[in-house]
Amino acid sequence: MVKIAVLGFGTVGSGVVEVLRKNSQSISRKAGDVIDIKYILDIRDFPDSPERHLLTKDIDAILDDDEVSIVVEVMGGIEPAYSYTKRALLSGKHVVTSNKELVATYGAELLAIAKEKNINYLFEASVGGGIPIIRPLNQCLAANEITEIVGILNGTTNYILTQMIKEGKSFEEALHDAQEKGYAERNPEADVEGYDACRKIAILSSLAFGYQVDAERIHTEGITKISMEDVEYADHMECVIKLLAVSRKMGDKIFARVSPVIIPKSHSLAGVEDVFNGILVRGDAIGDVMFYGRGAGKFPTASAVVADIIDIVRNIDRNSRVIWTKSEQDLMVDIGETKCSYFVRIKTDDKPAVINVISRVFGSCNFVSIANPKTADEVAFVTPPRKEKELSVALNSINNMPFVNAVYNVIRVEKE
Amino acid sequence: MVKIAVLGFGTVGSGVVEVLRKNSQSISRKAGDVIDIKYILDIRDFPDSPERHLLTKDIDAILDDDEVSIVVEVMGGIEPAYSYTKRALLSGKHVVTSNKELVATYGAELLAIAKEKNINYLFEASVGGGIPIIRPLNQCLAANEITEIVGILNGTTNYILTQMIKEGKSFEEALHDAQEKGYAERNPEADVEGYDACRKIAILSSLAFGYQVDAERIHTEGITKISMEDVEYADHMECVIKLLAVSRKMGDKIFARVSPVIIPKSHSLAGVEDVFNGILVRGDAIGDVMFYGRGAGKFPTASAVVADIIDIVRNIDRNSRVIWTKSEQDLMVDIGETKCSYFVRIKTDDKPAVINVISRVFGSCNFVSIANPKTADEVAFVTPPRKEKELSVALNSINNMPFVNAVYNVIRVEKE
Repeated sequence: MVKIAVLGFGTVGSGVVEVLRKNSQSISRKAGDVIDIKYILDIRDFPDSPERHLLTKDIDAILDDDEVSIVVEVMGGIEPAYSYTKRALLSGKHVVTSNKELVATYGAELLAIAKEKNINYLFEASVGGGIPIIRPLNQCLAANEITEIVGILNGTTNYILTQMIKEGKSFEEALHDAQEKGYAERNPEADVEGYDACRKIAILSSLAFGYQVDAERIHTEGITKISMEDVEYADHMECVIKLLAVSRKMGDKIFARVSPVIIPKSHSLAGVEDVFNGILVRGDAIGDVMFYGRGAGKFPTASAVVADIIDIVRNIDRNSRVIWTKSEQDLMVDIGETKCSYFVRIKTDDKPAVINVISRVFGSCNFVSIANPKTADEVAFVTPPRKEKELSVALNSINNMPFVNAVYNVIRVEKE
Repeated sequence: MVKIAVLGFGTVGSGVVEVLRKNSQSISRKAGDVIDIKYILDIRDFPDSPERHLLTKDIDAILDDDEVSIVVEVMGGIEPAYSYTKRALLSGKHVVTSNKELVATYGAELLAIAKEKNINYLFEASVGGGIPIIRPLNQCLAANEITEIVGILNGTTNYILTQMIKEGKSFEEALHDAQEKGYAERNPEADVEGYDACRKIAILSSLAFGYQVDAERIHTEGITKISMEDVEYADHMECVIKLLAVSRKMGDKIFARVSPVIIPKSHSLAGVEDVFNGILVRGDAIGDVMFYGRGAGKFPTASAVVADIIDIVRNIDRNSRVIWTKSEQDLMVDIGETKCSYFVRIKTDDKPAVINVISRVFGSCNFVSIANPKTADEVAFVTPPRKEKELSVALNSINNMPFVNAVYNVIRVEKE
């Protein structure tokens, strides 16, 4: 019998306990041993829970209990999750987590402790909810040099964009709708500003390339500036706007970015709608592989946590070699040095002058116009591929011209 | 250093050797040991191959060599692959394979030997080429009771259907095209009659439900009867025709089937085109998860084989608990007892009489008509859900009516 402790009895924690109870027979068969929940830690009381006899507020009792061999950290946030996790690993307990913030921030350190102690720190649930992605990347695609990962990693923003695209709702309406449905939090910042997707692509990049990719080094833009007109322009171009997390190997370096991107409707990720996530992995042998499913939610996430628990029970005496380390060198490519095409909207009273200037600055652009009267005072176009730093300079100079009233929006465009 | 032998130097075998050579550094790092190819077995000579010094025709030398701890069987077919695999496992050597026919037929027996010997028989490459599906099913979704698997598992037939749907080619033209491109064999029977997909769904079902599902117990229809008119009708119904392999848990029993199915264009698998495969897995905790990628080809398949090799090197001293057993009872649900809607086309000189009879036999049907003059002499309709055995009886009686000239085709219809 393997005894475990669950830290945090919120949505994910209670889901983990429920899945372990409901499918206990098949889980024991697959794990090769019986899994017994000895403690559930939470600062709250749950007097009506059937699990109330397991609830405790005493972390020391858990960490000092030699019978507990696996700690399931589903509290979220950095502290006290970080301290608890580190103490658990140092005392030789395996740790399973769904905490993307912690993995993205302290992954390298915690994985090194796990390796040193010959135990495991597993985090399948930290990216893509229940979608198997961490283990496939680490094991199934191990024969490949991963060259690129492109993902829709945040269900909340994908739901909002889908509502804007399909139902013609404004960003504010769609956000409100997502909040009503429980898809977005009351403070939606982490989702709509792209921070959540940024942490997840940091984890996937670290895993794929073997070196810690710090979330704060990843250029991150959210979807708050996306308007109905942008959506309409994209549609006119046979495209959709998606919040994409991108990570690419560029020589010996890594480029990562989170931002809205205009992609063709024929793109594999264009059909990923609502709260679903989709992750495209490109490897040198495999070509493109895509993973798709619910990226969040109580039971999908719990399912991934429990899969990690089963994996540890199967391999209780060894480290699973999920590892990345801190690099001595700076591996990150500066966003200014990367190339992209851009969709640009400029407000002007003198369209011919703007069109003339743009062609001089960018070379031949594709101009786009839609019937919406709100866009009557603007010139919209897609530039040829340019370095980001060149774009900034060019837009600055254009913005200073007397016949340019404003730059409404700039959105990256990718063809595949 | 771990020494391996590769049995078969065809497309997959040479791909495995190439991937091991090309990515040797990162593969060693991930495996935690150096992988050394000691033998390559083939009955042919390859005098110009850089690997010629490793080539042998002597299987005994390989199986008697205690230095060889992993045998990679990529010969295909039942014999001599079965004998070699069994001997290798019995002598304590791990075996990795891409041989779906062998796994589908002798999986239970070979897995039992591997378990008994505390070694591994792994076959990630047998289904979905390079798409990670075996390991995700077995590990990542281990917390779930799998309730259903629906897959486009054969790239050749999917390419042919895509050509019919998108390019308006006939079955024969599309098949010829697939043969020209190397997507279909000269004798395309195993693909177009559905046998290949049948073996693959047998493997996935066995894995998901824990009991050997024999391929010959799976109702299997190919795509040879699908005509351009069928494709046109489907399009008119906002649907496409796909060759679907389906496996469902029904109470304590299992239902599996391979056949063309009319599915809505909004279905997750409708967008899986050309030689790509897509596999939808439904679990009680996870909901729907989809896996997508190239289901065949030298390097995708080699990538999956090498991933299995790496996994074995990581866990050289233990069985990985991939297992299914033969059941004492008959677990298979008879196809006659399963329900489905059907698209039916009846050739007639007396449409009102046919319409009248159909409504009496099936209740309210949805009638469909297209502008194609070739369909002027027919009545086409979609039935409400009926048991397969009821449909057979009904169609028989309709077929015997004087005003019915022929039943052109019957294709299953599924909404989700």
